Amino acid sequence: MIAINSVGQGRSKALVAVLGFSAWWVVGVWATGAYADRPPNVVIIFCDDLGYGDLSCYGAPKTRTPRLDRMAGEGQRWTQFYVAANVCTPSRAALQTGRYPVRSGMCSYKRRVLFPNSGGGLPARELTIAELFKQRGYTTHAVGKWHLGHLPKHLPTRHGYDSYFGIPYSNDMDRVPGVPKNANRDGRVDYFNVPLLRDETVVERPADQHTITRRYTDETVALSKRHKGRPFFIYLAHNLPHIPLFRSTDFVGRSRGGAYGDVIEEIDHGVGRILQTLRDEGLAGHTLVVFSSDNGPWLSYGDHGGSAGPLRQGKGTTFEGGHRVPGIFWWPGRVKPGVVNDMGCTLDLLPTVAALIDAQLPDDRIIDGVDLSPTLLSGAPSARDTIFYYRGDRLYAVRHEKWKAHFTTQGSYGSSPKQAQVQNPALLYDLEADPGEKVNRAEGNADVIAWLRSLAEAHRQTIKPATNQLTIPLPNRKP
Amino acid sequence: MIAINSVGQGRSKALVAVLGFSAWWVVGVWATGAYADRPPNVVIIFCDDLGYGDLSCYGAPKTRTPRLDRMAGEGQRWTQFYVAANVCTPSRAALQTGRYPVRSGMCSYKRRVLFPNSGGGLPARELTIAELFKQRGYTTHAVGKWHLGHLPKHLPTRHGYDSYFGIPYSNDMDRVPGVPKNANRDGRVDYFNVPLLRDETVVERPADQHTITRRYTDETVALSKRHKGRPFFIYLAHNLPHIPLFRSTDFVGRSRGGAYGDVIEEIDHGVGRILQTLRDEGLAGHTLVVFSSDNGPWLSYGDHGGSAGPLRQGKGTTFEGGHRVPGIFWWPGRVKPGVVNDMGCTLDLLPTVAALIDAQLPDDRIIDGVDLSPTLLSGAPSARDTIFYYRGDRLYAVRHEKWKAHFTTQGSYGSSPKQAQVQNPALLYDLEADPGEKVNRAEGNADVIAWLRSLAEAHRQTIKPATNQLTIPLPNRKP
Repeated sequence: MIAINSVGQGRSKALVAVLGFSAWWVVGVWATGAYADRPPNVVIIFCDDLGYGDLSCYGAPKTRTPRLDRMAGEGQRWTQFYVAANVCTPSRAALQTGRYPVRSGMCSYKRRVLFPNSGGGLPARELTIAELFKQRGYTTHAVGKWHLGHLPKHLPTRHGYDSYFGIPYSNDMDRVPGVPKNANRDGRVDYFNVPLLRDETVVERPADQHTITRRYTDETVALSKRHKGRPFFIYLAHNLPHIPLFRSTDFVGRSRGGAYGDVIEEIDHGVGRILQTLRDEGLAGHTLVVFSSDNGPWLSYGDHGGSAGPLRQGKGTTFEGGHRVPGIFWWPGRVKPGVVNDMGCTLDLLPTVAALIDAQLPDDRIIDGVDLSPTLLSGAPSARDTIFYYRGDRLYAVRHEKWKAHFTTQGSYGSSPKQAQVQNPALLYDLEADPGEKVNRAEGNADVIAWLRSLAEAHRQTIKPATNQLTIPLPNRKP
Repeated sequence: MIAINSVGQGRSKALVAVLGFSAWWVVGVWATGAYADRPPNVVIIFCDDLGYGDLSCYGAPKTRTPRLDRMAGEGQRWTQFYVAANVCTPSRAALQTGRYPVRSGMCSYKRRVLFPNSGGGLPARELTIAELFKQRGYTTHAVGKWHLGHLPKHLPTRHGYDSYFGIPYSNDMDRVPGVPKNANRDGRVDYFNVPLLRDETVVERPADQHTITRRYTDETVALSKRHKGRPFFIYLAHNLPHIPLFRSTDFVGRSRGGAYGDVIEEIDHGVGRILQTLRDEGLAGHTLVVFSSDNGPWLSYGDHGGSAGPLRQGKGTTFEGGHRVPGIFWWPGRVKPGVVNDMGCTLDLLPTVAALIDAQLPDDRIIDGVDLSPTLLSGAPSARDTIFYYRGDRLYAVRHEKWKAHFTTQGSYGSSPKQAQVQNPALLYDLEADPGEKVNRAEGNADVIAWLRSLAEAHRQTIKPATNQLTIPLPNRKP
């Protein structure tokens, strides 16, 4: 079998990439690299429904995020950073595996994410980013929202993580029957019977969501201090700013952006604490910290949802607002500071850390991610030139370099068009001149559309049927 | 007569402000200040139709503006900075005078700006910001687009500027009869018979717009070097990125944002040259540089127009996208670096520089601006808490603190609603939680709307009839 990496920059190279490229290439560069002796710690901070426009350094007009702004100033701020799915479960599966979720069965058109009554989850055969770190003797920790299966066999502890502290699915699930209709907007903690787990044991239920962002941060800070002598990987997946919005007492009314702004500012504060801990512990020069989000903002919640800034629509759609998110990389002395206008994707985190820590990628499956480390370390052009946009398991759009062809369109929650609309000819956008997808450039560009369609077809050829994990019911239940 | 300054922060204070406040307060703070001996040079760089979302430091996903980003990082980047009108002529009149253009007659509902066949212009009785500088012995220079009257009596040289080099109105005017319909999008320089003036003399016609951004920068750099020993004020009003888009050879295809991106990057490059000149000349610590734009982006030009980022609509409307623009202040060692989420307005530039250079504001007229220098120099809360949104001479909306009431709505060019639509009850937006004006909060907030209406009424009481300058024809012509 082969590993696929979109390493090319031109059309011909992309075709090579789609046709396959051995995994050795990705790690070859680093196989004898300088990090073999002391591979870096890695912390991935992954937010929930935080939009492209929600941070001050990405143009948020109201929310103050000075710690994330500083992180961006000291590191790289990517303006074309993508997720591989526009809703929670498949996006997280993509980050963990470096593979489009259609390959693992972790996406579905109608039942878009896992629920408390789901019996499915990330299959054991998938290699997670944590398991990659285990190859190299790291301690590995998941903190926060998992959402890749809540049965014990699907939890982080069964997927390469030494420890887990967090909630297994979204913070608006397990809703108590009879609570007010608008509980998602003006919720109380006890409206949502969400469990908080330590490893595989429920330690609190309902989880006290007011303090949860702070406690995730506390856990991350403690883990960073504890493992000074041994390299560590921490995957910190905040379950906010997903609705319902909760923040600790110190942050109520602290922002100018209402409850949503408060939540973002508490997350920012936590990032500041984590980076300061790394500095204080002398680990700043030895730790890569990544900040991103799982998909665009949930716009239908109005001022309880975030902002995609200049991008079209938000969470749930294949328009840019659903797929493009903040992407900040920080590693003082190693990551070359600057604003990066190249493409990157959460799919790329796994191959990138594989290169940085000299771990071996599997050669028995397709990996969709590419190695971004040359861009991170030296500002070289990004190896990513293509993005496939899925809604569930259906491929709706393809971007190659600046061109994006939308073969099928469907709006985000409540937005137009509500039903899938096949576009023939495809809508074509020049995402560099027109990131807001306002001007359809299909006319006179049939060759570009044909090329993008051929990329989509070549990609489809690589997809093998996988059991749909999102429609599996709990054992002893009917679907 | 009295000068009006919205200095308060609460409702009662705002009422005091609306009722009047002597101008001595504004300058009193600085009357015996440390700058009396060496007042700073001031450079105002004012772009045309550059939107809130067009700079990288304001979240632009495509355009690279590293010099403006650095300027913002070394200075203050304001996220709630406003213009006093959403189209060109009245916005510029407001900057020059510190007064809502309805007071000078420089706005009009139907004929929204001045044209080559206009005979009107900024009345001689208005005090311009340049005349304020003259009080203190500055040399004063206007470079770029004026658009406050093109008859000799209205030119910068008659309004306090020692010199002028630029075009007198928009770069898409004086269109040659018979040129292609889409000349505004894919224009040639000779499609637009726009004159370039040196003081009051036409030195080039049509102006070579390909090189004009560079030449404006050259002029500013030369003026900065020449007047080292004497304080100077330069008002550099780029006529781009207003359509048609022109850039010099070096910048064609240089950006990833098409022609629009190229134009922004050439402006950024020019800003870099100006700041570097100030550093090289030892003037950085003695020069306040301000960067802003005259109104929001002209969205109907698609990828030849800019982006308002997360804000609603663009140029021409009283929604936020028309009125809120980038606002960057730079003065190394004096302006306290940071992101400012308070309100400011181009109206405030005149009173602010009056404070900084210890000049006297007139006491025979209303000045709508407030002194922002405490915020600039020490990060104190901004004295501005209120914005009045006009379309022509009609007051459509009022913002006080976070609340904006829209009494009449009308979309920007081509956008909905096309006709003025009276809103009763008014639309109410919480601009801090909802800068995109998506969630109407009128329900249950009748008292807030009533308060905002009372502010509008109190403001209206202060408006005295003024001759409409925009409907005056050229002498010897019928209107």
